Amino acid sequence: MAGNSREPGQTVASRLLAVLAAFDERHRTLTLTDIADRSGLARPTAHRIIGELVEWGALFRTESGAYVVGRRLWKLGLLAPDQSGLREIASPFLQDIYGATLATVHLAIRDGDRVLYLDRVSGHRSVPVVSRIGSRLPLHATGVGKVLLAFAPPDVQERVLGNLTRVTARTVTHRGHLEDEMRRVHRDGFAQTVEEMSLGACSVAVPVRHLDGSVAAAIGIVVPNLHRDRARLIAALAVAAQGIGRNLPEQT
Amino acid sequence: MAGNSREPGQTVASRLLAVLAAFDERHRTLTLTDIADRSGLARPTAHRIIGELVEWGALFRTESGAYVVGRRLWKLGLLAPDQSGLREIASPFLQDIYGATLATVHLAIRDGDRVLYLDRVSGHRSVPVVSRIGSRLPLHATGVGKVLLAFAPPDVQERVLGNLTRVTARTVTHRGHLEDEMRRVHRDGFAQTVEEMSLGACSVAVPVRHLDGSVAAAIGIVVPNLHRDRARLIAALAVAAQGIGRNLPEQT
Repeated sequence: MAGNSREPGQTVASRLLAVLAAFDERHRTLTLTDIADRSGLARPTAHRIIGELVEWGALFRTESGAYVVGRRLWKLGLLAPDQSGLREIASPFLQDIYGATLATVHLAIRDGDRVLYLDRVSGHRSVPVVSRIGSRLPLHATGVGKVLLAFAPPDVQERVLGNLTRVTARTVTHRGHLEDEMRRVHRDGFAQTVEEMSLGACSVAVPVRHLDGSVAAAIGIVVPNLHRDRARLIAALAVAAQGIGRNLPEQT
Repeated sequence: MAGNSREPGQTVASRLLAVLAAFDERHRTLTLTDIADRSGLARPTAHRIIGELVEWGALFRTESGAYVVGRRLWKLGLLAPDQSGLREIASPFLQDIYGATLATVHLAIRDGDRVLYLDRVSGHRSVPVVSRIGSRLPLHATGVGKVLLAFAPPDVQERVLGNLTRVTARTVTHRGHLEDEMRRVHRDGFAQTVEEMSLGACSVAVPVRHLDGSVAAAIGIVVPNLHRDRARLIAALAVAAQGIGRNLPEQT
């Protein structure tokens, strides 16, 4: 979206939003020139808007003169109910699982055709993982992603199953195999991965359901291997998922 | 700031920011009328700006027709380096303490004259606490707050010590007593509270230092009482604070 044209949009509001959109996970610190380039705005326009955003606290100017997202935007983002509400309800349940296993625990939702990580609990004795809070990863290569894919609308499933990218040598990229897995998620109530996102990391995951049975999120746990502990981990996740689901507000 | 005048500011940008500023911890779901009132904008102006913000994903329109902060703003806020960088570095250390104690663990920085909670780790066996991620609480009434107050610039200390509000019956509101406590924080390397923010909750906290010795943050732990465990908790916090400090980027 960024950098396609000069002075995009008809409104000042859209220019301001274009400046904000210049920032993403791989572009966390930007100079004025970067922002102008990525937003498609002329430098004087970008400069003026940046000034207003810095004054308000949406951006922060570092000592080197570059810009980063500011504290006020962080606080504003925390008010997002999908994210913070669900995260806050789930947090003590995730911590309980972490406290019992010391393994990495995830809370995730579907964001379009990707899995979006809302929370990650991880200590120094946990397996290193790729995900960070706010990361968007392929649905078909992670445990929580497979759960969310199994319960996604048909058009999402169709798009994802039609484009199964390889992440590691063990990622499932055969459509028929993944369709079998989706059926097993519905039958058994959990998904698993074996080194499909990162070598050395396996996972199991279960759905978190609203009172009406619809799937609100997925929680999963990442461990070095599943041999001995799988049943115990799934049981712990199922208990936590029930607890979280019971505490979710009714859908409005 | 909100609601003081009609159509504040000279620029469209400032009106857009006024719409965003209408949302805060106590105003998470707002109608068009609420937003117009709180931003001081005429309803048609507010309506037009809200439309652009919804289209971009900064706001989300619920099924009941009210507005909440949207997923895109949440993701943008996660890019704030003060918050997410420090939080990400500290997270496994906080989890280690939680895993060993199952008590509530906090990471906080000073935000003006308040303590701002960047992270909270808490399970079902932890003491219930007031703080949430993003909460701003009085510096003089919490463990992490007292640490940050002890290392705050003189003008901040002066303002805070001149206005010691009572939160519980046990909050320290006598200036001389709190000044003694600040000296003890410097001498002993930790702060403590005994039911000063919430009855039934005690805390200890230590500073997290940059390589140059300056204080970057505070970490603390909340427990029902400190009798037996204080030395052990302070030792665990000190180890974690050293680990976090070693991993902080050098200040630029």
